[in-house]
Amino acid sequence: MNPVSIFPVPGLPEIVNGASLATLILDGVQRLGLALEPGDVVVVTQKVVSKAEGRVRSLEGVVASPRAIEIGNRIGFDARHVEVILSESVRIVREAPRVLITETRHGFICANAGVDRSNTGGREFVVLLPERPDESARRLRESLRERSGVAPGLIISDSFGRPWREGQVNVAIGAAGVLALRDYRGQRDPDGYELQGTELGVVDELASAGELVMGKLDRVPVALVRGVSVAGDDTVGRLLRDPATDLFR
Amino acid sequence: MNPVSIFPVPGLPEIVNGASLATLILDGVQRLGLALEPGDVVVVTQKVVSKAEGRVRSLEGVVASPRAIEIGNRIGFDARHVEVILSESVRIVREAPRVLITETRHGFICANAGVDRSNTGGREFVVLLPERPDESARRLRESLRERSGVAPGLIISDSFGRPWREGQVNVAIGAAGVLALRDYRGQRDPDGYELQGTELGVVDELASAGELVMGKLDRVPVALVRGVSVAGDDTVGRLLRDPATDLFR
Repeated sequence: MNPVSIFPVPGLPEIVNGASLATLILDGVQRLGLALEPGDVVVVTQKVVSKAEGRVRSLEGVVASPRAIEIGNRIGFDARHVEVILSESVRIVREAPRVLITETRHGFICANAGVDRSNTGGREFVVLLPERPDESARRLRESLRERSGVAPGLIISDSFGRPWREGQVNVAIGAAGVLALRDYRGQRDPDGYELQGTELGVVDELASAGELVMGKLDRVPVALVRGVSVAGDDTVGRLLRDPATDLFR
Repeated sequence: MNPVSIFPVPGLPEIVNGASLATLILDGVQRLGLALEPGDVVVVTQKVVSKAEGRVRSLEGVVASPRAIEIGNRIGFDARHVEVILSESVRIVREAPRVLITETRHGFICANAGVDRSNTGGREFVVLLPERPDESARRLRESLRERSGVAPGLIISDSFGRPWREGQVNVAIGAAGVLALRDYRGQRDPDGYELQGTELGVVDELASAGELVMGKLDRVPVALVRGVSVAGDDTVGRLLRDPATDLFR
């Protein structure tokens, strides 16, 4: 049986608004001595997608509302940063010192609505999540197909905290050309017993696997995963639970 | 840069009480044409560890309490199965048709306390989680070291559901000889900006990566991960959040 291989795609420059991520990714894959193959999955961190899409805001241009100032004072956070977080959120889930857990417009529940102040080419800037990450994934996949002739699975990932366990893990926030869920329901195990309720969030497992070669500091924002069979046509939107049926909420 | 490789370890037989998992894993690695190397991480599904430890119960020998019968009637579940779930739990988090979300004695929050009825050599048996999974991981790692001269990182994994997102993902329920968390706090990004609150649950990312080669039906309960730098001395117990500081709960 062949292994699954996860390659760090090296050498991407600092990404600016309008950058062609597809070209930069293909250059990086070439530097690995490889070319995209059918069945490959490319995992890209949210931050470079956001930067290429111009989802960067200067805090100098942000006017904090009274509500943002009040929250900022309470949690010890720059009120302008709070303002941007609120603009990306539909509700606040929890406040704590120096962090807001919110539900984003996309339906993600995460720290600071994914609005990040690090790694942005200067301290006075913040990077927002892509406006429609599934659509970003679809477009980037299409650009890769146009330039290489191969349409890989495409996953945009970010590191989110979670309940009950310390540590963030990489999850998918956007996807195209992959299965989001692998469904074992109705199948039978070797003893003939029907597998109950077994759907695996394979798109998140791929995002986590990609993180193993990325690292936060050494600027590897792209991973190439080879050897998995996850072709499909899902989005991450499909993965978000209906709160009414969410037993874990 | 070398890729991370994830090998499915093939050919393990049905595991019975007292089986030497270490021997069977090393046989499987040999069938791959490989030998364990320092730095390797072995991911083993909970079910084979539990079976080797005799954590299997015949439902015929279980007498359901009035409480288990009442819950079983309410959710449409075998009352004896409910009895075993309750015996493994410290509290019920949620009831729903055909599932109980509970907190286990270990501190995990998962469906049916991890007590599974599938894949057990017969329908009238259930498989419980290991009693002390971190200790199981430590022992299995030690057995591998005795037999091969190499002590790999060792992760015992199970598939858990989670809030907000459909699909289970593989997480670590026991670990030895690995980092559970990779800590970026206090480090600075290329722009000199200090990374805030960034601890990655690398042991769970490894468990998820391992699942990519396992599958539920084709009896590959072991994955070998090569090429990651995660040597450490953590346990999964360390990863469980203090409820008082759990902003996501």
